[in-house]
Amino acid sequence: MAQIRPHTLSGFMELLPEDQKKMQRVMATLRESYALYGFTPLDTPVIESADVLLAKGGGETEKQIYRFTKGDSDLALRFDLTVPLAKYVALHANELTFPFRRYQIGKVYRGERAQRGRFREFYQADIDIIGDGKLDIMNEAEIPAVIYRTFNALGLKNFRIRVNNRKVLNGFFALLGLTEKSGDVMRTIDKLDKIGPDKVRAVLTDEFAVEPETADKVLEFISVPGTSADKLAFLRRYEGKNETFDLGLHELATVVEYVGSFGVPAENFEIDLTIARGLDYYTGTVYETVMTDHPEIGSV
Amino acid sequence: MAQIRPHTLSGFMELLPEDQKKMQRVMATLRESYALYGFTPLDTPVIESADVLLAKGGGETEKQIYRFTKGDSDLALRFDLTVPLAKYVALHANELTFPFRRYQIGKVYRGERAQRGRFREFYQADIDIIGDGKLDIMNEAEIPAVIYRTFNALGLKNFRIRVNNRKVLNGFFALLGLTEKSGDVMRTIDKLDKIGPDKVRAVLTDEFAVEPETADKVLEFISVPGTSADKLAFLRRYEGKNETFDLGLHELATVVEYVGSFGVPAENFEIDLTIARGLDYYTGTVYETVMTDHPEIGSV
Repeated sequence: MAQIRPHTLSGFMELLPEDQKKMQRVMATLRESYALYGFTPLDTPVIESADVLLAKGGGETEKQIYRFTKGDSDLALRFDLTVPLAKYVALHANELTFPFRRYQIGKVYRGERAQRGRFREFYQADIDIIGDGKLDIMNEAEIPAVIYRTFNALGLKNFRIRVNNRKVLNGFFALLGLTEKSGDVMRTIDKLDKIGPDKVRAVLTDEFAVEPETADKVLEFISVPGTSADKLAFLRRYEGKNETFDLGLHELATVVEYVGSFGVPAENFEIDLTIARGLDYYTGTVYETVMTDHPEIGSV
Repeated sequence: MAQIRPHTLSGFMELLPEDQKKMQRVMATLRESYALYGFTPLDTPVIESADVLLAKGGGETEKQIYRFTKGDSDLALRFDLTVPLAKYVALHANELTFPFRRYQIGKVYRGERAQRGRFREFYQADIDIIGDGKLDIMNEAEIPAVIYRTFNALGLKNFRIRVNNRKVLNGFFALLGLTEKSGDVMRTIDKLDKIGPDKVRAVLTDEFAVEPETADKVLEFISVPGTSADKLAFLRRYEGKNETFDLGLHELATVVEYVGSFGVPAENFEIDLTIARGLDYYTGTVYETVMTDHPEIGSV
């Protein structure tokens, strides 16, 4: 038998004992913290039917997914924990109590080119609250409270949870006549941190044929400075012009109020109108948490 | 887009919240218990190079392994946690402190036909002590101590840890002139619990051409009744005839002595000369733990 050189695939992490111990402590802290807030653990298979995992997939997912056959089964490794969650809830809806609060810490697989900070196998640690009808907006405010508590338990101090509401953005875009381009505009402004305002303006005008003055208005709107209270005051100037906007503003104001009463200090939490999140399935409140000492890490 | 029926693959476990909470508690207990004895956590990738995973594989492994290609990589999902451990130790030998004591709780994958009690994805919870030369026999006695402590912490009472030593068996087989058939005889007597002594005798004589009187001697030897002390006294009758046997007897006696001094009560621990373990890589002490209330579960 030929000698096999022992090696670990690139993009797959394998830690030495000291680092693995730290990793275990982080995961134990996450589990404890999530459980304190009444989130129940969930574990789903790493392998699923390819048709289940790719049901909502776009081209990117399809390219990066590990897919293979065994016998006559078309199988794939999970790409995230969201699609398996959707399947789990659909499958067990009759046996679950809603709102269903779950956390899941598990490995996900992406067959992309390994690069700095990108892995092919990595852990996601998700929390979700799933209703069987309308969920009270208070639930949206709980997520930042859990994030705040968890980061504190991990000994992290310098972080900021940024919140926005897609209805506020969609409503404002409607006022500018951008409803049809709304998704493209969202995905573009979401890159503001990475590519800067000039590039965002260029993409909007050149790629998506947004009028220059309209692009300026978008940038001015999302870049308004100040505290969360300042931004809410700014947003109220647009009240009464668009139903979606008004609903979003009400939700955003409610979340900000609850988050404060849940004990999250103002220095760890702010409205940031530039947060849009690329994916279409986000409809209301969206978050992003950044380490203020380490902006290079991106959102966590 | 066609409607996709949400389903989970057969042989892949997915628990409802209450059961998943119990599962998490079991895993937390295992981690705590293993850590108390100085075992360090290890995590290795689920996906490895197929050549690494199959380096030592026989036909069975090859058939059951999930293997696929991505780009020009020949990949496979881990079949157990032992081969990845061997790779990890080979790769990081210079950075580890020996004896290297590790535990690993992780999912493994076997593409076999799903049947009662058999899963395609399931957790293994392994502990290992790896030396960089000769390991003191005391380490062998620690394993039952960890098993005893862990089962107690899990609230399990009625279990028995059975121990044997392959050198004792190999030495005795040599005395019977069975050295060349040693592996086959081992694998056959290992099935004693499942198929009974008559079937074992038939397999030995019919399939492996063992003389009937020799087969009887093998069965008589492994079936000797009594306490661990009785069995050690029985084994001492064969002392001085075969070097391997003598070494094995010394190891077995030492393990029994240490296990007692490590606080494992006699009712939870016994020598069982029928334990052989099928795989060739077992050389000395071998164990098997059974739930005495639930013999149908098999070894755990």
